[in-house]
Amino acid sequence: MIFDLDDDKPREECGIVGVFGHAEASLLVALGLHALQHRGQEACGITTYDGNKFHSERHMGTVGENFTGDLTGRLPGHQSIGHNRYSTQGKPVIRNIQPIYADLDSGGFAVAHNGNLTNSRALRRKLVSRGAIFQSTMDTEVILHLLARSDQETVADRFLDAVRQIEGGFALVCLSNKKLIGARDPSGLRPLVLGKIGSAHVLASETCALDLLGADFVREIEPGEVVIITEKGIRTFFPFPARPARPCLFEYVYFARPDSIVQGRSVYEVRRKMGHQLAIEHPAEADVVVPVPDSGVPAGIGFSENSKIPFQLGIIRSHYVGRTFIQPSQTGRQKAVSRKHSPNGAVLKGKRVILVDDSIVRGNTSKRIVEMVRDAGAAEVHLRSASPPIMHQDFYGIDMAERSELLAANKTLEEMRDFLKVESLGFLSVDGLYRAIGIDRDDEKPQFADHCFTGEYPTRLVDHDMNQSGKDRQLSLLD
Amino acid sequence: MIFDLDDDKPREECGIVGVFGHAEASLLVALGLHALQHRGQEACGITTYDGNKFHSERHMGTVGENFTGDLTGRLPGHQSIGHNRYSTQGKPVIRNIQPIYADLDSGGFAVAHNGNLTNSRALRRKLVSRGAIFQSTMDTEVILHLLARSDQETVADRFLDAVRQIEGGFALVCLSNKKLIGARDPSGLRPLVLGKIGSAHVLASETCALDLLGADFVREIEPGEVVIITEKGIRTFFPFPARPARPCLFEYVYFARPDSIVQGRSVYEVRRKMGHQLAIEHPAEADVVVPVPDSGVPAGIGFSENSKIPFQLGIIRSHYVGRTFIQPSQTGRQKAVSRKHSPNGAVLKGKRVILVDDSIVRGNTSKRIVEMVRDAGAAEVHLRSASPPIMHQDFYGIDMAERSELLAANKTLEEMRDFLKVESLGFLSVDGLYRAIGIDRDDEKPQFADHCFTGEYPTRLVDHDMNQSGKDRQLSLLD
Amino acid sequence: MIFDLDDDKPREECGIVGVFGHAEASLLVALGLHALQHRGQEACGITTYDGNKFHSERHMGTVGENFTGDLTGRLPGHQSIGHNRYSTQGKPVIRNIQPIYADLDSGGFAVAHNGNLTNSRALRRKLVSRGAIFQSTMDTEVILHLLARSDQETVADRFLDAVRQIEGGFALVCLSNKKLIGARDPSGLRPLVLGKIGSAHVLASETCALDLLGADFVREIEPGEVVIITEKGIRTFFPFPARPARPCLFEYVYFARPDSIVQGRSVYEVRRKMGHQLAIEHPAEADVVVPVPDSGVPAGIGFSENSKIPFQLGIIRSHYVGRTFIQPSQTGRQKAVSRKHSPNGAVLKGKRVILVDDSIVRGNTSKRIVEMVRDAGAAEVHLRSASPPIMHQDFYGIDMAERSELLAANKTLEEMRDFLKVESLGFLSVDGLYRAIGIDRDDEKPQFADHCFTGEYPTRLVDHDMNQSGKDRQLSLLD
Amino acid sequence: MIFDLDDDKPREECGIVGVFGHAEASLLVALGLHALQHRGQEACGITTYDGNKFHSERHMGTVGENFTGDLTGRLPGHQSIGHNRYSTQGKPVIRNIQPIYADLDSGGFAVAHNGNLTNSRALRRKLVSRGAIFQSTMDTEVILHLLARSDQETVADRFLDAVRQIEGGFALVCLSNKKLIGARDPSGLRPLVLGKIGSAHVLASETCALDLLGADFVREIEPGEVVIITEKGIRTFFPFPARPARPCLFEYVYFARPDSIVQGRSVYEVRRKMGHQLAIEHPAEADVVVPVPDSGVPAGIGFSENSKIPFQLGIIRSHYVGRTFIQPSQTGRQKAVSRKHSPNGAVLKGKRVILVDDSIVRGNTSKRIVEMVRDAGAAEVHLRSASPPIMHQDFYGIDMAERSELLAANKTLEEMRDFLKVESLGFLSVDGLYRAIGIDRDDEKPQFADHCFTGEYPTRLVDHDMNQSGKDRQLSLLD
Repeated sequence: MIFDLDDDKPREECGIVGVFGHAEASLLVALGLHALQHRGQEACGITTYDGNKFHSERHMGTVGENFTGDLTGRLPGHQSIGHNRYSTQGKPVIRNIQPIYADLDSGGFAVAHNGNLTNSRALRRKLVSRGAIFQSTMDTEVILHLLARSDQETVADRFLDAVRQIEGGFALVCLSNKKLIGARDPSGLRPLVLGKIGSAHVLASETCALDLLGADFVREIEPGEVVIITEKGIRTFFPFPARPARPCLFEYVYFARPDSIVQGRSVYEVRRKMGHQLAIEHPAEADVVVPVPDSGVPAGIGFSENSKIPFQLGIIRSHYVGRTFIQPSQTGRQKAVSRKHSPNGAVLKGKRVILVDDSIVRGNTSKRIVEMVRDAGAAEVHLRSASPPIMHQDFYGIDMAERSELLAANKTLEEMRDFLKVESLGFLSVDGLYRAIGIDRDDEKPQFADHCFTGEYPTRLVDHDMNQSGKDRQLSLLD
Repeated sequence: MIFDLDDDKPREECGIVGVFGHAEASLLVALGLHALQHRGQEACGITTYDGNKFHSERHMGTVGENFTGDLTGRLPGHQSIGHNRYSTQGKPVIRNIQPIYADLDSGGFAVAHNGNLTNSRALRRKLVSRGAIFQSTMDTEVILHLLARSDQETVADRFLDAVRQIEGGFALVCLSNKKLIGARDPSGLRPLVLGKIGSAHVLASETCALDLLGADFVREIEPGEVVIITEKGIRTFFPFPARPARPCLFEYVYFARPDSIVQGRSVYEVRRKMGHQLAIEHPAEADVVVPVPDSGVPAGIGFSENSKIPFQLGIIRSHYVGRTFIQPSQTGRQKAVSRKHSPNGAVLKGKRVILVDDSIVRGNTSKRIVEMVRDAGAAEVHLRSASPPIMHQDFYGIDMAERSELLAANKTLEEMRDFLKVESLGFLSVDGLYRAIGIDRDDEKPQFADHCFTGEYPTRLVDHDMNQSGKDRQLSLLD
Repeated sequence: MIFDLDDDKPREECGIVGVFGHAEASLLVALGLHALQHRGQEACGITTYDGNKFHSERHMGTVGENFTGDLTGRLPGHQSIGHNRYSTQGKPVIRNIQPIYADLDSGGFAVAHNGNLTNSRALRRKLVSRGAIFQSTMDTEVILHLLARSDQETVADRFLDAVRQIEGGFALVCLSNKKLIGARDPSGLRPLVLGKIGSAHVLASETCALDLLGADFVREIEPGEVVIITEKGIRTFFPFPARPARPCLFEYVYFARPDSIVQGRSVYEVRRKMGHQLAIEHPAEADVVVPVPDSGVPAGIGFSENSKIPFQLGIIRSHYVGRTFIQPSQTGRQKAVSRKHSPNGAVLKGKRVILVDDSIVRGNTSKRIVEMVRDAGAAEVHLRSASPPIMHQDFYGIDMAERSELLAANKTLEEMRDFLKVESLGFLSVDGLYRAIGIDRDDEKPQFADHCFTGEYPTRLVDHDMNQSGKDRQLSLLD
Repeated sequence: MIFDLDDDKPREECGIVGVFGHAEASLLVALGLHALQHRGQEACGITTYDGNKFHSERHMGTVGENFTGDLTGRLPGHQSIGHNRYSTQGKPVIRNIQPIYADLDSGGFAVAHNGNLTNSRALRRKLVSRGAIFQSTMDTEVILHLLARSDQETVADRFLDAVRQIEGGFALVCLSNKKLIGARDPSGLRPLVLGKIGSAHVLASETCALDLLGADFVREIEPGEVVIITEKGIRTFFPFPARPARPCLFEYVYFARPDSIVQGRSVYEVRRKMGHQLAIEHPAEADVVVPVPDSGVPAGIGFSENSKIPFQLGIIRSHYVGRTFIQPSQTGRQKAVSRKHSPNGAVLKGKRVILVDDSIVRGNTSKRIVEMVRDAGAAEVHLRSASPPIMHQDFYGIDMAERSELLAANKTLEEMRDFLKVESLGFLSVDGLYRAIGIDRDDEKPQFADHCFTGEYPTRLVDHDMNQSGKDRQLSLLD
């Protein structure tokens, strides 16, 4: 069987970038999006305003495939926003690629959104009943319609009016003719940071984007904060009712790039310490520590450092992957083969292997990689997950399996060990994960959103409850 | 110099087709649009409803390039509408191709429109100020928003409510989950006919579309009439204040296909009689009658019949035309050459030629074709236009030059003759044109819209007057 | 049923052009090929030499689709040849598009060929057995290999050596670093003319190409003549054994553009006279003469002139044709419909119609068009073919049906009349065809190649005989 | 400035695969080529023979982009060869993609070639003077022409006759209707291994290809060996004069995938031991060992193991790279930024860094990466190259810089240190490299081709000498 290891990873829906006050705004946004490409590769878009008109390009594929060449000519202007899409919401058609744009009475307005609104269907239903015509199936478009229909006077007030009505996980960058606006949901579920390059302001999902375009990190946008950037500078607002900040742990576990700084901590260092912690919680007698590349590498290094068991590349990752190959049907022996990862026999043969992965979702690919490692001659396989067991779905923009498909939600540890066919299996504990971050979990008021492990959701789930209670009309009748 | 004769023809913005109650609705619509391809080649689209969902495809290019293969599989359903675009309004981007679609509170709704609204900008401005977000720059979208915001109960009433607010030239075919709707503006400026194939109903811009898809002609939709077709049959409405019918003369002069029947008259026959009339009004001593192909052929045949001067193909038309060739800069002699038309020397050499064209707009290509004919050896050139002098702009969907560019609006007959370098020049008179149709013009209440020749517009021109009075805000800030 | 009238026309394989001594050689070649587009639309190619290197582009599709924009930049040089392909020989893949090119010991050499060699398979077999590697399945490539292997000294002598070995129908234009070469087979089966623009020389299949690029006609290349054009001027050779000239009649009947001059006669005039002759040989009592457009129009005009029966456009031809539409399967009535031609009811209804076509090959589409005309209301249909009955295959580059499919080869006149369901049927006689040209046929030594009508082939048919005698190995093992 | 680290790596021209006797031969070849994608990403091709005809597809881009879907349907047959191209020889046009094919007198024959012939221009010149016409500019085509013109009887003898005439570095897989042929040059400069899957035989450049398609490794094809595989089994020949085997060291240093076994040794292990050796030869006081990913990782791990200095990912590699971005011109600070690699500040800040790369060619990107690491806060940078200084060009298929551009060929160690701006610089010695492999260099008869480091070329260089002595005619006059 042929498989992709990444098939069973959680998926994030977006990376966003905004630049205000730079002659090459679109080029900086493109570089920032390129640095954030790991957050979404399905599509990307950039919108600019040149003082007179808005310009926009939206394409399927990556930034490097689409936004090269004379960008400043194609997308002129000193202010720009951009978006990488992964995507849970809406089909992969051009009209569902962001930034989305509307000509409002007050002028043009564009929005790019990372996250997922938990009450967007309820809001959409209400708006349509009042005559709104939606051009996409994206939850993001709700924000535009709320803005268009607000009875507030100024664009700033209309925006605050609109975001007060939405719930869920969101980081937004928006562009009007005079403003770059950034916003983060009250729990801070989705990330957003502020930077500066010369006199220009930059907003981005992660610090690694600031690094690539040469901007200095200023600070994180705070949970619940709205910043409005104009020629006169930055104004800040907190339009939401006060609520404890609970940034999402998955940025540390999987999403953020290892060279990013999240909540003041190096992602690489946190992951390495997750490896330390894992070695403490689930040691094993073994000859070699082998990471599942690339995301398991820092925890693998950490595990090796703590256990003194040598770290080796027992699995090699290919950089060349295209569409899926058909499975050969008549090959003599049936072997687990991945078109993306290959076992390195010289490292594995006859060895007791500690296999370190960042997380286990459905478990199918973990099962196959264990089989692949064993086929390559490993004497024992001890599987270690650098994240706690994933027991619950996310509703804030992370695309994982349905609950019924989550391995840890449906099997005991022993059953999982049997299913995965490993000598031993260990998951980092929730407390251990907090410890890797450098704090103790406050069980009364947890400092992070850890609902996927604990079931403790930080917000209401309006659409989900509505959907559970009865049947929801389909979002669009157009196929 | 290289030129295209068609560069200087009036341009129509659309052909439309609708089918209700046929298992291969989308295929019939495609065939109908193919028959109407002369009304617009820039883009085309088809929308269907399959009892559960709407399906839509919109493409740049012709029907034959896009809507072939397994259409019924791609666009399933027993009801369908389609559209060929030429286009004055909105840029040639996918979002400006029709049919346009919206998910309304009452379900899906699609619109295809031939014509031009004369108060769309005023309506759009009002709608945007009330929070409407437009997805296109097409005037047609105004109709959707009026419908979405109507406080009437049923889709039928909402549609009637919406069309009562629009002015100008329009033939519409619309599709809801239960209905096919057809509508024609109160003056009947744009054409629409009703046909039947088996038990299925068909709406189309011209009868030639009915012919190609094998439908029988039932009747024309009347000026100001709305027909609502459901499974129960056809209901008819006249929602507009009474107003004299004035169908557009240009269907006879240039737009309609010669094999179509318009207002009960064969277009081919009318054009042939325009040739008869022209021979009566502007005879000439000559050896040969040469039409400018293809549109000048029927009038050429008519001129020959009446004058007894032989009809010959003195100009050959090529069927193979792609993008424009660069002009060779260093060719020895500078000749007028057309990549689409070639002079047939054997017919022209040493002859006194009567050159018959359907109309003269700016005059530049007429000038070049005269030069080409003379270069090929013609002894004399007598140019005859089968339409009267074009002196005024149209605002109902015909794309001609600005008034300042119209030859007849800016020059006397003598000046035109000098400019075109012909031995004699004759235009059919307005009365002669009516006579070719078989009636006498009623100067109090003209039976047709002949404003391009007479300046007598059949409606108010709201947007035009607004635009003249002050400056209008641009329709979209997005480039 | 949906059909294309052109589906049953004879097909020519090429148009060729060459220019020597002009700064915009490739642009002139492109214009010439555009004028010759009717000779082949499948593919086209242009090769130039810039004094240092050869440049070449070959594309699927028409000249207007491919060779526009800055041609002189893309294909620089003062000498150039080009080719339009229709094609019988070789699959429509890039390597089978001409001009074909080889780096010979003496330098680069490119060939463009119109026609078909009758001994190419025999020659190819011999060359391959001596180690030649063919890059295409085109017979034209044989010429390159013969040239490459000639033991003559100069390129001119090697070319003469090569063409002496080939048989069949050919017009060639070739390009070396110092020469433009033109050649025509000893019978003159395929056409080639010489022109001049300023000091530059031009070779082309037809005079209409000279007209479009603004060149003056100098003379036809004679049957069996080779012209070698260099900076010093034109040298002429007659390398073949003497043989009577017999140009192909089909240039008059179908292939050549009506505005071309072939063998000193206007093609349009010959066709008109074919109509005269046809009216004399096969008169009919009727109301209207209707041509099958476009190729039947001149003969239709001629028939009308001679018979005094009015000429009318009873069939309208659409300019918009793309890929084939699927046939609707459930349309109530089964009608013959063409996506390219429509009946003009106003002309046909109740009328006795003389339908004039240029030729009848298989007869299937003639049958359908008769049915279409009758469905539109014609009272009687009298079909007239402006060419004699086609009884035999061509082997010199005209692609018609197999003999077993040719209508006239397999049915008596009465059987054909029954099959076509017409009131009367008439074919122009072979003598009548010669008379339309202005001469009497010399039955001992016919002045033209008329083998398709008479079975008298002007040359040996080496490959055909070899193929008949035993089985020939397939030309290429590569699919 | 924006740069790609890989811009300055040596480039290999190919990976090759052949399969004989398997119902899904083309699919296995595609999987094998996918595993060998690191050897060439510019283009790829697969040829099969289905018992009756050959089938071939050649495309620009990677295997995963082109050879997916129903391969066995598109490319049927039980025998197949394939090729990945990188490429020094010939332009990236379809006709220069392999396998190349010819219809020979004996039937079809296809060749795929990894390497470079050192006398191909001399052979080509001779062949062209004897009338051969080349379809490509690839040296590989010479082999086909030699085969076509051989006066031997059988295909096997003709192949042996042909390869005896070529010199240089080559691994070949060839396909005739009855045979799969593999060949390796007498020095064994390019690699080729034999495997088995069920009863089918497999040839491939590296063992990692056998692993992915599930085949067992049988043995390496020996230097100078030709294997001819038919239904009856494998025959082996040694057609070349005896000559010492000298496989190319660069397979260990850079080309081969780490999980491949080359000459009986794990590439990963050799690279790790190169790191050990490097730590012995060039130790440094430092805090952290940072590899340049991905190729520097095994040597980095080895360096860390031997030096006990911690191994950390101080540079992060992005998987998302498309076309080149334009450089922003007005960014305030001018920083070295790579779109492919990012510094991991948390690891580098304030640290003394040992930076381990696999090799240094021109030195420009090494210079930039040092700058990037230092900008990220490194206190000291000690650069270590796991290969010896590259002083000489290769002529056997490795594409590196011209000698005048090679850093080590033009600067002393001290000058290089200055240029690269590092605290210290160390290259592995040639002896150390042999030691990492596990042997001592025999200076009389070196066991490997190490000419890039030592200048001792294993063969004559016919074309190179010819080129030096006079001026060579350009290979093709066609641009």
